[in-house]
This record gives sequence, C-alpha cells and structure tokens, in this order.
Amino acid sequence: MLNKKYLTEFFGTAGLLSVITGSGFMGQGLAAGNDAVTLLGNSIATGAGLYVLIMILGPISGAHFNPLVSVMAYRQKQLKQNDLLPYIASQITGAISGVWMTHLMFNLPIIQASTKIRTGLGIWVSELMATLILLTVIYLGLKYAKKQIAMIVALTVTAGYWFTSSTFFCNPAVTFARSLTDTFVGIAPQNILGFVIPQVIALMLILKIIKK
Amino acid sequence: MLNKKYLTEFFGTAGLLSVITGSGFMGQGLAAGNDAVTLLGNSIATGAGLYVLIMILGPISGAHFNPLVSVMAYRQKQLKQNDLLPYIASQITGAISGVWMTHLMFNLPIIQASTKIRTGLGIWVSELMATLILLTVIYLGLKYAKKQIAMIVALTVTAGYWFTSSTFFCNPAVTFARSLTDTFVGIAPQNILGFVIPQVIALMLILKIIKK
Amino acid sequence: MLNKKYLTEFFGTAGLLSVITGSGFMGQGLAAGNDAVTLLGNSIATGAGLYVLIMILGPISGAHFNPLVSVMAYRQKQLKQNDLLPYIASQITGAISGVWMTHLMFNLPIIQASTKIRTGLGIWVSELMATLILLTVIYLGLKYAKKQIAMIVALTVTAGYWFTSSTFFCNPAVTFARSLTDTFVGIAPQNILGFVIPQVIALMLILKIIKK
Amino acid sequence: MLNKKYLTEFFGTAGLLSVITGSGFMGQGLAAGNDAVTLLGNSIATGAGLYVLIMILGPISGAHFNPLVSVMAYRQKQLKQNDLLPYIASQITGAISGVWMTHLMFNLPIIQASTKIRTGLGIWVSELMATLILLTVIYLGLKYAKKQIAMIVALTVTAGYWFTSSTFFCNPAVTFARSLTDTFVGIAPQNILGFVIPQVIALMLILKIIKK
Repeated sequence: MLNKKYLTEFFGTAGLLSVITGSGFMGQGLAAGNDAVTLLGNSIATGAGLYVLIMILGPISGAHFNPLVSVMAYRQKQLKQNDLLPYIASQITGAISGVWMTHLMFNLPIIQASTKIRTGLGIWVSELMATLILLTVIYLGLKYAKKQIAMIVALTVTAGYWFTSSTFFCNPAVTFARSLTDTFVGIAPQNILGFVIPQVIALMLILKIIKK
Repeated sequence: MLNKKYLTEFFGTAGLLSVITGSGFMGQGLAAGNDAVTLLGNSIATGAGLYVLIMILGPISGAHFNPLVSVMAYRQKQLKQNDLLPYIASQITGAISGVWMTHLMFNLPIIQASTKIRTGLGIWVSELMATLILLTVIYLGLKYAKKQIAMIVALTVTAGYWFTSSTFFCNPAVTFARSLTDTFVGIAPQNILGFVIPQVIALMLILKIIKK
Repeated sequence: MLNKKYLTEFFGTAGLLSVITGSGFMGQGLAAGNDAVTLLGNSIATGAGLYVLIMILGPISGAHFNPLVSVMAYRQKQLKQNDLLPYIASQITGAISGVWMTHLMFNLPIIQASTKIRTGLGIWVSELMATLILLTVIYLGLKYAKKQIAMIVALTVTAGYWFTSSTFFCNPAVTFARSLTDTFVGIAPQNILGFVIPQVIALMLILKIIKK
Repeated sequence: MLNKKYLTEFFGTAGLLSVITGSGFMGQGLAAGNDAVTLLGNSIATGAGLYVLIMILGPISGAHFNPLVSVMAYRQKQLKQNDLLPYIASQITGAISGVWMTHLMFNLPIIQASTKIRTGLGIWVSELMATLILLTVIYLGLKYAKKQIAMIVALTVTAGYWFTSSTFFCNPAVTFARSLTDTFVGIAPQNILGFVIPQVIALMLILKIIKK
C-alpha cells in the first residue's frame, strides 16, 4: 500500500490545505477587519502554492489532490482502477493532515469544527459552476497546453476565490477537511453536503460531455 | 448555427464577464470601503481569468470575446465573413449570460440596470486610448510573441484597470453587459454610447494603420 | 527623422509613464489613505505594463525607454551612434506625453509641477543602488536569459518600488517627466538633480565593470 | 579567495535581504496599521526579487543564497568541498550587508538589534515544516522542472510568508541577518536558535531521504 504515488497525493493535498488554511488564518489575524485583503493574500498564496505543487509533484502522481480529478483521470484511462481508491484515501487523509498541521503551527486547538455558514441556492449554483469550470479547465488545459497546466490551474483558482460566491472549493476532500477548521476558510459541517452534491453533479456532467 | 467555435465564444465571454462582475462584487462586499483593494482583487482576478480563458479556448475559436477583435481578425483574413456575425452574437449573448450567472450566484436580482455614472471628456479619451492600446497589443503580440499572447493580453488588462480613468472596457459586448449590473463594475445605460463610440473609432484607426 | 524605431521608443515610453502616473493616481483616489495599497496597485500595474511593452516593442526598437539603457546599448555596439540622440529625444518627449495623457484622461490640469519632496542622503544612495541593480539585471538578463528578459525587468521594477526608499526611478527621462505631475508618483523639480546624478554615476560604474 | 562565484553569492544574498527588509519597512510605514497589506507587499516583492536573482545569478554561482542549500548541493556533488565554506561566508556577510544597506537607504541607524519575539512550539514546528518544504521544492524542482526553478522557488516563498506562523525563514544566514534589524521582518537575537535548530534538523532529514 505504501506507494510513492499515494504518498505524493497525501503530501501534495496536505501541502495544499496547509496553504489554504494557513494563509486565510494569517490574513484574518493581520487585516484589521478588511476581509478583501485577507482574500487577496489567501487567493495569491493558494495560487502560488498550487503552481509549485503541480510543477514538482505532477511528474510523480499527476498532482490530482482532488477525488473528482482522480475519477476523471480514471474514466479517461489515465489512472488505473486499482489506484483510484488509494488515491482518494490519500487525498482525504492528506487534506485533514494539512489542516491539523496548520493548527499546530499557529498554536490553535488541533481538533475543531467550523461554524462558518455557507449555504443557499446562490452558493450551491456557484459550486456547481465552479466545479464545471475547474474540470473543463483541467480537461482542455491538458489537451491544448499541457506544459502550462500548472499556471493555468493555479490562476483558475486564484480568480475563482474572487468571482464565485462559494469561493471555489470544487473538491470533496478539501470541503471535508475545511469543515475541521474554525478559521477564515472553514465551512460548517452541516453545509458540506450542499457543496459535495453540486461537485459530484458537475463531475457527472463533464464525464457525459467528454464521452461524446 | 450551433457550432463549436460559436459556443466557445459564448462560454468564453460568459466566463470573462463572470470573473469581471463577480470579483468586483466580492471585493465591494469585503473591502470595508477601501475601493483600491477591490480594484486590486478585480484586476488580478480578471487578468488571471483572461489568461486561463485564452490558453484553453484560444486553440478552438481564437478566444476573441470581443466584437472589435473579431472585426480586426476578419479584416486580416483570420476569420471568415460567414463567422463574423455569429461570433459577435455569441459574444453579446455570452456577456449578458455571464453577468446574470453572477447575479444568480450572489443571490442578487437577475435583471438590473447600472446607476454608475461613467462620463466626461477624460473618460471618453481614456476609452479611446485604452482601445487603441488593447488592439495594438493584440496585433503586435500575435506578430512577435504568439506563444505568450495569453499572458500579454491578461497583464495588459490588469494594468489597464489601474492606469485609465475609464478602467479599460475596450469591448462593446462587455460595455453593454456591464450596464446590466448595478455593482462595482457597472456602467449606467445612458453612458454606453460614450464608451462604444471611442471604441469603434479606435478600431477604425487601427485598421487604417495596419492596412498601410 | 520619423523612423519606426524612434516612434516605438516614443510610444513605449509614453505608455510606461501613463501606467506609472495613472495607476498611482487611481490608487491615491481609492485607497482611503492606505498608501501601501496604492503602492501595491502602482507596482503591480507598472510591472504588468512593462512586461507587455517589452514583449511587443522589444523586437522593433529594443524597448529601452531609458536614456541610460540606450547609452549602455550604444557602448556595447548594440545601438548605432546616429540613433543615440534620437532615441533619447524620443524617450524624453514620450515620457512627458505619457504624463500629460494621464492628466487628460483623469480630467486634471495638463501642466503641473510636483511638490513631492524626495531628497536626502538615504534617497540618493537608494537611487544609486537601484540604478546599479537595474542595469546589472538588464546586462545579465540579456546575457543569460534573453527570452525571459521582459518578465525579469518587470519583476525587478515591481520589487524595486517596494525595497528602495527612492522607489526605483533609475531613468532620467522618467525622473524629469514625473516632476511634471503633482500626484502620487511626482518628484519636486528641485529634487531632480539628486536623482539624475546618482543615476549617471551608476551608469558610469556599470560601463567600467562591463569593459573589464 | 576573491572569486566570481563567491562574489555572486555575496551580492545575491545582499540583494535578497535588501528586498526582504526594505519591502517590509516600506509597507510598515505606509499601511496605516493594516499588517496584511504590508505582508502582501513584502511577499510579492520578495518573490519577484528572488525570481530575478535566481534567473540572472543562477548561471554563475547556482544562486544558493542559503547555507542549507549549499550543504545540500555539496552532498549531491554539485558543489566542491573547497567552495562550501567560502559560499557560506559569502552568504552570511552578504545577508548582513543587505540589511545594513537597507538601513542606509531608509535613513535608519545602521546597527540595530531586533526586539521582535518569534518563539513557541508552533513557530518551531512551522520553521521545521517550512525548511522541509523549501528543500524538497528545490530538490524536486531541479529534478523535474529545472528551467522553471526560479519561478518555482519564488512562488514557494511568496506562499510561505502567508501559510506558516514562522513566515518561512528557512535559512540560517537570513535568520542571523534579520536579527540585526528592528523592523517588520526582524527576529529578536534570543530567538535565533529556535529557528536555526529546526532548519538544521530539516536539512539532516532531507539529506537522509535523498540518500535512500
């Protein structure tokens, strides 16, 4: 089971969640109530971190860090069936580890549950659109501009934090892990399903379109 | 009529307007009255989004997203005459759809009209200069640095939001669609002509210069 | 006299000064007294604009936009002696035009003189160091990474605005033109010499080092 | 002893510390108490400066600017044993010179000691993780994406400033030099060991992993 690719997905997703959670918390503490500055730091740091992670880990595991992306890769025969569940397990445990590592670094209680309400029709539609966009960007980016895929995905997420009301989660592992932090980037556990359902619908739609 | 290129122009322009409108609204809500932070988020998100859209959609439709660019491409024989009107129709309907999608995502009334006054000699001159700059950048960028065209256009717009008093619309489809949102990036309907006329004059000047 | 290269230096330097002056004024008006946000917008817009200008105009004129760079190019036999004075004249007139164009776009009086004091030993040392850095970056960048020169110079200036007390003028044409605007980026006319003298000393030092 | 490579490490590290210290001080003075804006300017300027320094100095000395990186290069036989101590000496003296140059540019007393407390378990863990990440990024970046190494390292540091509680020092020479400035980026001398020990542990861990 302890396989180089799975470890890479674990550490990559942990790194991604550390950047997301840590930069949000850092901004929150310094921005004197101006949340737009926090979002700016959060979105720039996340984009920068994602670029780096995809550049250095992509050649090893594909740098999915996202169960939806792994399923899409599997359906396009770019990931073996045997690898699918271990990939997803690595992503989920990695994501949780990344959040906890951030709590440790910032002297916060390790175990937390978010109280941040993120719900409503607008947000559900937003998360559906966001996931459709992310998966389309990855699909077309790999097809037309594979060498620039790291920058393309990174800037999609940087922009996504700003133009969607759900702030572009697009990832069930990330969504679940972010329910475990009561900081800027958290999501209350009772709101998880409202994010994951549109994410999965978006995946199914994309798989149908690609198939044609 | 339902052609892959036209759909690409439709979705690309919709995506562009979602990023423009959504990031402006997001900033406005969070920036605690510091509009420079809103403009920072708005300009960075728009540049990032434009880079992505041009990278992934350029190989399909050329990624014009702008009637002026389509006319310029037509005059340089890079777009067929039969494609010109469908391209423009796709851009206009796409732009409107992008604004409305943003309203839906942020739980705002779908149908709005902007009340933001953008008028006066300075702004008209600004829009003339901005459009001359954008079209020149696209023309020379395609000529001398085609592989970097996405980054070149993206950073032109990021800078343009900051150094022009009209904030670099440069696009009749974008101008019209932005009259339909009463948020940070809106433009009052009565001010549309003051933007579109200088945009068209700039196009005619550029076509004259290129012809020589 | 009306030569394509000279026109390119004129318009390029005008564009550069429009970006510098316009983005500074835009920030100043919106940032509600937080000058760090203004500097952020100013430095990001200037870097973005410089990247674009070098990418699209470099193939025509070399994209100097700076008398010091033209003299350095001339001493390295990359610019003909006959072209040196017209280049410098184009840069100075272009720089002034860019500032005036910005005043026109923002409905400000065209003719102004700055009242912003920028003087003292620290600032003079800063301008000497800044110019040494810029010329070294251009020299080594062209030698080792010519294809990335636009990004290298752009990010040097973006960083330079932040880490030097003189905010990285490094350019006599830019210095003179910025004395003609009483906005965020201005410099009082009586402080010009304190900038231009260190700039010229830096050029002479670099020419000596290169010669060896 | 006066060798081109050593001089490059000296000037490169001096440049890096100038950017770090200067941009922090600049932000602090302008941000009207909003430290998140200062961190934004500080992290963007540092990333931009690092990109430039690695692009133009990498071809000469390898652009280490960090004793840990030099030791790692030596252990991988990419740096000769005779060069190791001179590299480290150049980095330390360069780092101090960069801080002092900044004090000179901003009219501050040259000799200072920081009073900024950076201590506690969270921060020590953060510095351990940060150094593990930086060295892994450099190792894998050189292995898989050598041509993009400058952008990869630069964006790692830009993100690192935001997502770690220790703000990503990862460098004993930088740590020591930052104890000599009582500004935004300083570290109290009594806290140095708490940073350097985790940095060295991280280096030893990485060397063990690489060896396998």
